[in-house]
Amino acid sequence: MSQVFAFAIGHSRRNTNNEPLDFFFPAPIKEPGDELAQLIANRFSAGITQCSPEQVAAFCAELGNDHPGAAAAGLADADGPLDVVLLTEDGPIEGAADAYLKLHLMSHRLALPNSLNLDGIFAKMPNVVWTNDGPVDPREIAAVQLQARLQGRQLNVELVDKFPRMVNYVIPSGVRVADGSRVRLGAFLGEGTTVMPEGAVNFNAGAMGPNMVEGRISQGVVIGEHSDLGGSASTMGTLAGGGEIKITIGNHSLVGANAGTGIPLGDRCTIEAGLYVTAGTPVTVLDEQGEVIRQAKARELSGGSDMLFVRNGRTGRIECRTNRKAIKLNEQLHAHN
Amino acid sequence: MSQVFAFAIGHSRRNTNNEPLDFFFPAPIKEPGDELAQLIANRFSAGITQCSPEQVAAFCAELGNDHPGAAAAGLADADGPLDVVLLTEDGPIEGAADAYLKLHLMSHRLALPNSLNLDGIFAKMPNVVWTNDGPVDPREIAAVQLQARLQGRQLNVELVDKFPRMVNYVIPSGVRVADGSRVRLGAFLGEGTTVMPEGAVNFNAGAMGPNMVEGRISQGVVIGEHSDLGGSASTMGTLAGGGEIKITIGNHSLVGANAGTGIPLGDRCTIEAGLYVTAGTPVTVLDEQGEVIRQAKARELSGGSDMLFVRNGRTGRIECRTNRKAIKLNEQLHAHN
Amino acid sequence: MSQVFAFAIGHSRRNTNNEPLDFFFPAPIKEPGDELAQLIANRFSAGITQCSPEQVAAFCAELGNDHPGAAAAGLADADGPLDVVLLTEDGPIEGAADAYLKLHLMSHRLALPNSLNLDGIFAKMPNVVWTNDGPVDPREIAAVQLQARLQGRQLNVELVDKFPRMVNYVIPSGVRVADGSRVRLGAFLGEGTTVMPEGAVNFNAGAMGPNMVEGRISQGVVIGEHSDLGGSASTMGTLAGGGEIKITIGNHSLVGANAGTGIPLGDRCTIEAGLYVTAGTPVTVLDEQGEVIRQAKARELSGGSDMLFVRNGRTGRIECRTNRKAIKLNEQLHAHN
Repeated sequence: MSQVFAFAIGHSRRNTNNEPLDFFFPAPIKEPGDELAQLIANRFSAGITQCSPEQVAAFCAELGNDHPGAAAAGLADADGPLDVVLLTEDGPIEGAADAYLKLHLMSHRLALPNSLNLDGIFAKMPNVVWTNDGPVDPREIAAVQLQARLQGRQLNVELVDKFPRMVNYVIPSGVRVADGSRVRLGAFLGEGTTVMPEGAVNFNAGAMGPNMVEGRISQGVVIGEHSDLGGSASTMGTLAGGGEIKITIGNHSLVGANAGTGIPLGDRCTIEAGLYVTAGTPVTVLDEQGEVIRQAKARELSGGSDMLFVRNGRTGRIECRTNRKAIKLNEQLHAHN
Repeated sequence: MSQVFAFAIGHSRRNTNNEPLDFFFPAPIKEPGDELAQLIANRFSAGITQCSPEQVAAFCAELGNDHPGAAAAGLADADGPLDVVLLTEDGPIEGAADAYLKLHLMSHRLALPNSLNLDGIFAKMPNVVWTNDGPVDPREIAAVQLQARLQGRQLNVELVDKFPRMVNYVIPSGVRVADGSRVRLGAFLGEGTTVMPEGAVNFNAGAMGPNMVEGRISQGVVIGEHSDLGGSASTMGTLAGGGEIKITIGNHSLVGANAGTGIPLGDRCTIEAGLYVTAGTPVTVLDEQGEVIRQAKARELSGGSDMLFVRNGRTGRIECRTNRKAIKLNEQLHAHN
Repeated sequence: MSQVFAFAIGHSRRNTNNEPLDFFFPAPIKEPGDELAQLIANRFSAGITQCSPEQVAAFCAELGNDHPGAAAAGLADADGPLDVVLLTEDGPIEGAADAYLKLHLMSHRLALPNSLNLDGIFAKMPNVVWTNDGPVDPREIAAVQLQARLQGRQLNVELVDKFPRMVNYVIPSGVRVADGSRVRLGAFLGEGTTVMPEGAVNFNAGAMGPNMVEGRISQGVVIGEHSDLGGSASTMGTLAGGGEIKITIGNHSLVGANAGTGIPLGDRCTIEAGLYVTAGTPVTVLDEQGEVIRQAKARELSGGSDMLFVRNGRTGRIECRTNRKAIKLNEQLHAHN
C-alpha cells in the first residue's frame, strides 16, 4: 500500500542561481484515501521532484474534475517544468519546497496549527525581497532596484521576509483580511473570520471561525469559534518569551482591546480592555458574590472557562470574577482551596 | 422643485457576471442648491442609472469649469457607459453604488461621520480581492492568480475586504497617511491630519483636523481639532462591544500611547499612556487640591472637559484629576454630589 | 585639503514642474579619507548639482570596483542627468536632496540616529503620493488617478507622506522587515534585526542589531544589541509629547508586549507586558529581598540597568525590582536615599 502524507504540484520562482524563492501549490492534498494515494504513487516519486505540464494534465484528468486536487490543472499551461512534493510521512522540514507545502496545507484548512512537524522551518525558508515584480533574492535586489528605476518602473518592496503574505497564495472562502501584510502564509483562517487592519496572524496559528480578529495571533496560538481579539490584543507566543505554555483560546471568549494573555483560556472568558494577564500574574479569584475564593498565579487558572479578568479600579488588584454560568468552575476552584 | 440629496457620476469595475466590484466618483455633489438640483434633474433620472461619456461632457460643460463637480469631466474619456447615482433622499443603502457614493461623500468632507443613513451597508458592499491589477471577485481569484503567475506577472493581493483603501479613491488636501492600508474609504480626514503607520481610521469615522493619529478611530468615532491619539490608542467602537455609547473626543484632547477610551471626552482631556478607561471603570474623582470629590463609574463623566485620567502608581486607583482650568467642571461635579 | 562631510550621486523623480519628489542614492559616502575627498572635490562642486552619466562612469572607474561607492556605477545607464550632493559640513537641511541623502546615510548604517543635523527636515521634504507607478505630486494625483482608471490600470496608493518606505531605497544586509510600510527611510537597522508586522521604525531611529522589533521605535529612539520590543510596545518620542528626554534602550533589555517606556533604560532591563512607565510615573524601588528601598519618579531611574518594572497584581503598585546581577545598582540607589 502506498503511503502519502501530503502531495502537491506547484510552481516555483527562482533566483539567478536557480535556487527557489517561493512555491505556489494551488491544490495541495493531505492524507488521501488508499485509492488516491495509489494513483499519486503510480505517477510520482517520493520527495521533491519535477514534472512536465503534460504530466500535470494527465494526473488531473485521472483525478476527475470534481476532485479538489484537480484545481492544479491550470498548471498544465506552464511553459516549463513544475515542482512536485510527495511526502510519505510528516518528517522535519527538508527544504523550501516542503516548508511551503506545509504552510499551504494550513492556509487551505487541510491541517490545523500545531498539527504538523515544522522542525527546522526557519532555517529552510529563504529570506526574500517581495516586490510588485515578484520575489527577488536579497543579494540581487540592489541591481534590480537600480535598473527598474532607470527604466522608469516603480519597484515597490512589500516586505523582506522568509514568510510571504498568505493572500498572495491562498484566499480561503468566507474570510476578510483588511491588510494583506498582516497574515503570513501558514495562517489558518476559518470560515467567517475577519482580520481587521490591526489584526495579525502568524504562520502555524489561526482562528477557527467565525472570529473578529483585531489583535495578534502569535505563532502556535489558536482561537476558537466566536471568540474575538480586540484592537492590539496580544497572545503570547512561544517564540516571543512566552515559554513553554502554548496559548489557546476557546469559544465565545474575548480578549479586549490593548489587553493580552499569557495563559490559555477556555470558553466564555473575557479579559477586560487594557489588562495583560501573564502566566506569573498574581490573581485574586472571586466567586459570584464577590467573595475572595483564593489567591493564585494566573497559570493555575490556565484553560478555565467562564472567567472574567479585570484590574479593580479602586484597588489596582487583578481579579478573576466568574461569569454567570460558572458554577461548575467555582466548585472546582473551591475544591482546590 | 427638484429634490437632490446626493449625486455623482462614476466609473465601476465589474466581475465576469457584470456585477459591480467598486465605484469611483471623482466629484460627488451633496445637497446642491435649487439651480444645480434642477440642472441635475433635467439630465438624469433618480436612482442608479448609466450615461454615456458624451452626457458627462455635456453636463460638466453646463456646470462650468469652476464648479467642483466639473472634476468629473475627465470621465468623458471613458470607453463605455458611466454610472450615475441620484439620491433624492438619505434613505437606507440600496446597493453597492449608493454605498460607495456615501463613503465618497465622507472622504470628500461633504458629510460628517454619523450624518448619513448607512443602514444595510455591510450587506450591500461586495467582498472584493483588491490586487495590483484591480479588484477581483473572490470566486474568480484562484484562476486569475494562477494565470498571472504562469505569465510571469506578480499578482499582489493588498486586502480582501468590503471596504477599500480611501487613498485609492480620495486624497483630501493637507493630509498625510503613512500607510494607505490603515484608512478605509468613508473615513473623514480634516485638513492637517496625519495618520501615522500605527494609526487607523474606519469608515464613518474621522478626525476634524489638525490631528496626529497614531491610534485607532473606530467606526462612528470622531475626534476634534488639535486632539491626538498616541500609538495604539484605542477608541471603543459601537461595532466592537462598545454598546450604545457613541464615542467622540473634543478639541485639544489626548489619548496616550497604548491607552483607550470607552467614554466620550470633551475638550482638553488626557488619558495617560497605558490606561484604558471603559464605561464601567470605577473612577475616583479628585479636585485641584487632590481631595476626593466622589466615586463614579467612568460613564458618568462622559463628555466632560478638562479631565486627566491616570492610574495611581502607588495605589493602583484610577483617578480623574481636573486640568488647571477645570473649575467649572469641578463645580458641576460637586453639584452632583 | 578638501572638506567632504557627505557625498552621493543619485537619481531623482520630479513633478510636472520639475520639482523633485524623491532622490535615490545607491552608494552614499560619509566623511571619506583625504584621498577620496580630494578625488570627489576634483570632479564635483559643493552643494546640490547635476552631472552626466559619463561623469558617473568616470568617477566610479577612478574609485575602483572594490570601493563601496562604486555601486553608483549603475547610474551611468541613466538617460538623463543625475543629481549630485556634496556637503562640506553637517549643516541644517537645505532641500529635499540633502534631506534624502542624510536619510540614506542612516539606513545605509553610515550614520547613527541622532548623529546628524536634521534641522528643518520636515519643511524641506515634499509631501508625496507614493503609488505603484512611482511618486506623484498631491496636486497632480486626481488627474493621474482618473486617467489610470479609464485606461484599465490599477493605481495603488501605498501612502501619502513626506517619508517613503526605507525598503524601496535601502535594504541593509541581514534584516527582515515583515511589512515594508512600517519602516521609514532614515531608519537604522543593524545586522540581524527583524521588524515584525506590528513593529515600526521611524526615521532617525533604530536598532543596533540583532533585535526582535514588534513594537514602535519613535523618532530619536535607539535600542541596543539583543534588546527586544514586544508587540505594540511603545517608546515615547520627543515629537510625540515625550518632552526633552531622549529615549535609548541598552543591550539585552525587553519592553514587553503592549508595554511602553518614557524613560531611557540601560542594560538587562525588563518592563512587563502591559505596563507603561512614563517619566512621571511614581515607582516603588525594591531590593532583592523585596524590601522597599525608596519612592521615586521613574525619571530618576533613567538609564539604570538590571531593573524589572512590574505593576503588582495585588496592590496595583508600580515596582522596580532589581534583576539578579543588580547589586551595583542597588548600592547606587541606596546611596541616593
